[in-house]
Amino acid sequence: MRTITVIGIGMGSPEHLTLEAIAAIRAADAFLMIEKGTAADELVAIRETVLDRVLDGRSPAVVRIANPKRDAADPDYRAGVDRWHAARVALYSDAIAGLPDHAHGAFLVWGDPAFYDSTIRILDQAATGGMAFTLKVIPGISAPQALAAAHGIPLNRIGEAIHVTTGRRLAAGLPHDLDSTVVMLDDGSALEALNPDGLAIWWGAYLGTPDEVLVAGPLDEVKADILRLRREKRAAKGWIMDTYLLRRTAG
Amino acid sequence: MRTITVIGIGMGSPEHLTLEAIAAIRAADAFLMIEKGTAADELVAIRETVLDRVLDGRSPAVVRIANPKRDAADPDYRAGVDRWHAARVALYSDAIAGLPDHAHGAFLVWGDPAFYDSTIRILDQAATGGMAFTLKVIPGISAPQALAAAHGIPLNRIGEAIHVTTGRRLAAGLPHDLDSTVVMLDDGSALEALNPDGLAIWWGAYLGTPDEVLVAGPLDEVKADILRLRREKRAAKGWIMDTYLLRRTAG
Repeated sequence: MRTITVIGIGMGSPEHLTLEAIAAIRAADAFLMIEKGTAADELVAIRETVLDRVLDGRSPAVVRIANPKRDAADPDYRAGVDRWHAARVALYSDAIAGLPDHAHGAFLVWGDPAFYDSTIRILDQAATGGMAFTLKVIPGISAPQALAAAHGIPLNRIGEAIHVTTGRRLAAGLPHDLDSTVVMLDDGSALEALNPDGLAIWWGAYLGTPDEVLVAGPLDEVKADILRLRREKRAAKGWIMDTYLLRRTAG
Repeated sequence: MRTITVIGIGMGSPEHLTLEAIAAIRAADAFLMIEKGTAADELVAIRETVLDRVLDGRSPAVVRIANPKRDAADPDYRAGVDRWHAARVALYSDAIAGLPDHAHGAFLVWGDPAFYDSTIRILDQAATGGMAFTLKVIPGISAPQALAAAHGIPLNRIGEAIHVTTGRRLAAGLPHDLDSTVVMLDDGSALEALNPDGLAIWWGAYLGTPDEVLVAGPLDEVKADILRLRREKRAAKGWIMDTYLLRRTAG
């Protein structure tokens, strides 16, 4: 029986690694890595830095898995994602089948595998499809947590809820009961479309890395700055990972 | 200028510590510890185990801070919490004022300081009240993350939101758009009062510790088991920390 461990490695700083994640990285016989294309070269380099920090010169095998392209133009978002997942299930199953018996394979996931990452879901489908393995999941520091720590704030207000959502959903309307809403996976368009009146924002990009950028304030005052920073940084580096917290201001 | 670091230490397993948390624990000249009373003796012991794991025999000073009692019978929840916080602000300020100049003081927080913990808020009020210090926050593995990892599931469904709320709020009604809702700080009464029809639950207690207990299933089938387990474990150990994820089942 093979063991597949999905390891949350935090937001890019090796300092985000937990002892549990380090032990799992050291126990891995092979890393299963999804090919993300050239734009993410720096992300690959950051991940290598994280691995170098804990592997002490060991070099486990690396199994590269092609990343099938998702048709972003598909008007049926959910069906498009489902088709994309099905293609990935087949590729992940093949990769696992190629591991020796009793091997420990590891997927490294940015942030925490429980927050907007598809690895666990795809592995579940591979298991349902007949691929036998023991699944272990190791939590990691996620974007909302790195954001809150960098700004030195709690995510919730006293007795209130925390809502974590996506740019796509935010674009469809603010949550019914806004409280504190963390937005992930926004390409900038949801923020751009947002009516800033009565909202405050805490924004951060490249959280936990030397390039970390933070902006906070009333959204009507800082929105243009954030969108400009987002464009400039993204153009300069070729990629951006950012997230933000929204709250209604009093009155 | 003193430095005060609020360190998330995870849910009780030393393996949840991040490298950043370990470095901050090792850099501390003094730990500021809130007295929680006798029921939490085992929690104190777990925290000592976590510290022993990383302090390598060093014994930084421990400054004990009394925990003023909150009047749980106060019908105005928010005002009661505000008064309780004001008393804590004064005690925290005194404790910080007692540290040597340039000292590094550290608060150790279960889980992540950004999720339903009052330490940052109290320190902010101490700073507003004139106490000068540099605040640093270190995120840690929170209850929702430990829950998801233990069950081997993502917190969100594809493209959907994650809602984190309290037992008190859940008792006032299910969220408008339920999606995936994680409930924290429920003493069991919100779960007990919940209509189980059409809901599934993933429950966990003592997450990350050797006493971890997990139950998952349709709420109408497992609710009685969870409530019984919760009562038994709490009676046996004198305390319980638990959390759960709710989702609407299809149809």
